[in-house]
Amino acid sequence: MSLAIGIDLGGTNLRAGALRAEGGALEASHRELIGEDRAAGALVDRIAGVVERLAGSAAGGGPGANDAPVPVGIGVAAMLRDPRGTVARSPHLGWRDVPFGRLMRERLGPRFAVGVYNDVNAVTWGEAVAGAARGCRDVLAVYVGTGIGGGVIAGGALLDGATCCAGEIGHVKVRWDDSAAPCNCGGRGCVEAYVGGSYLDRRIRREVAAERARTQAIRIAGAPDRVNAAHVDQAAAEGDEWALALWRELAPMLAVTLANALAVLNSERLVLGGGLLSRTPTLVSMVDSALRIVAPPPILEPLTVAMAELGDDAGVVGAARLAAAGTAVAGP
Amino acid sequence: MSLAIGIDLGGTNLRAGALRAEGGALEASHRELIGEDRAAGALVDRIAGVVERLAGSAAGGGPGANDAPVPVGIGVAAMLRDPRGTVARSPHLGWRDVPFGRLMRERLGPRFAVGVYNDVNAVTWGEAVAGAARGCRDVLAVYVGTGIGGGVIAGGALLDGATCCAGEIGHVKVRWDDSAAPCNCGGRGCVEAYVGGSYLDRRIRREVAAERARTQAIRIAGAPDRVNAAHVDQAAAEGDEWALALWRELAPMLAVTLANALAVLNSERLVLGGGLLSRTPTLVSMVDSALRIVAPPPILEPLTVAMAELGDDAGVVGAARLAAAGTAVAGP
Repeated sequence: MSLAIGIDLGGTNLRAGALRAEGGALEASHRELIGEDRAAGALVDRIAGVVERLAGSAAGGGPGANDAPVPVGIGVAAMLRDPRGTVARSPHLGWRDVPFGRLMRERLGPRFAVGVYNDVNAVTWGEAVAGAARGCRDVLAVYVGTGIGGGVIAGGALLDGATCCAGEIGHVKVRWDDSAAPCNCGGRGCVEAYVGGSYLDRRIRREVAAERARTQAIRIAGAPDRVNAAHVDQAAAEGDEWALALWRELAPMLAVTLANALAVLNSERLVLGGGLLSRTPTLVSMVDSALRIVAPPPILEPLTVAMAELGDDAGVVGAARLAAAGTAVAGP
Repeated sequence: MSLAIGIDLGGTNLRAGALRAEGGALEASHRELIGEDRAAGALVDRIAGVVERLAGSAAGGGPGANDAPVPVGIGVAAMLRDPRGTVARSPHLGWRDVPFGRLMRERLGPRFAVGVYNDVNAVTWGEAVAGAARGCRDVLAVYVGTGIGGGVIAGGALLDGATCCAGEIGHVKVRWDDSAAPCNCGGRGCVEAYVGGSYLDRRIRREVAAERARTQAIRIAGAPDRVNAAHVDQAAAEGDEWALALWRELAPMLAVTLANALAVLNSERLVLGGGLLSRTPTLVSMVDSALRIVAPPPILEPLTVAMAELGDDAGVVGAARLAAAGTAVAGP
């Protein structure tokens, strides 16, 4: 594989890396805060600058006039409208109907071939080519951080869906009665509205503040207003009643969400990751146990569950490898 | 397209057809009851006889010694173990670990190329090539009859999953509290245990017998012990309270099941069919309405819902077309 460049444009960080080998090792990498100016034009310029620097500094130098275009894959925290990289909306970037792929291609020109992907899809592909799902053809990856996102690989190919929205597992409904929790998406009863980090953190703060919880988590955190999901997880591991009750309520919700998706997908590997799950091993273990009860046996038979391995590099690696696989398009 | 033969080996009927055109029109077709003798050897012989007759009677006659093998696709009501057509288990046929694909290839020899598929996958493929999902690349098909089965087409290809078990939507959980209904699969709270025909018919009989229901459905059916789901559906359409209450309980369960699968798959076409849904238009309409409330808007945007069009021919057409597409393997 020759040089490929990956970009991970998240809600906070712009990460980038140059990749040459088949694996996941980055030959050069870069990270900067996105900051306040999130106008598409400004970000396109900044990303292009990063790409050009990485292409120049990577061993062998940048592409010459006669070389094949360098693949550039960009994973973006957005809902895409089409495979050309039009962003339908990105709450994180404040974008709506931005022809991001076209703008990047115009700015980078014919020396580079640009592919734009949903960031969770890029992360999923990264884990599949070089991480926790290496060698697997059927993969479900679920990331629980502030929100909940998912990516699917079916028969060796990334599942895009009809409008590049496949893998919206955070908005799977786990409750549909009148008391189902409202979700930022406008719906109710989404699993994200129970297990997603931003909702869960608020609930933890509220319950701790209301002193319904004389919980070990407060001792572990040092102060009531510092308690987060990681402290709750440690308290649950120590047998704290409130923490265990909370995890016992949430673990089946996430487990059923996973089991129901797996019943449809029949994946061989379930990859779990994200800022919340990577800091809550007790919760993960309870989700895993519940999954083995609720998933149909023929679905469980081929399945292994693994934590994501590539961490913050997954999106960069995955986007670069997707672009290198020929899905990127050169600029004018 | 040259001659291809499709077989649909269900729980009751053995259907077969010869297909030559690209569409779904059968040039010859055949149906017989499977009957009591369901031993694999006996059925392999009977199917081979049907195949040979169809190949001989189809315009142009059977294949000669120098012709390419005739594709034979067989959809079977079974859980498969591998793409070669080993049946892991089929409750309908009473089979367990039967090398059905190998037996068919040995029996039919090199003049035929045999592909074995899950029957619901074959039906789904039939609707996609010649029925309600013509031209669609991302399809979810859900059939509610005695049980509930599903098939998925993702990016234009049938989704097999890791062990040919993808689409097990009947065993998606819609309840996971202590009172979740037991399902024949050994699990609890499966949507099939609420909406699947065999469970629903039992419940209808029970509630009608208990005279909890002074329902119009009894008048429509002619007698209390004749009330089935179609009568309940008509009663619901007439505003019958008991019938409406039952449909209002079940419709959201099926709608949430569909919405949650679609949130992961982002399909452009949802095909609904099966013996129960084809006779319950009021229920279908209530499921459709509920789906539009619970599915995330970006998932609804590209989606159209359609009833299955090919009826009993879908499995024969789909199996033939799958085999003709090159997934079939010639015998020794």
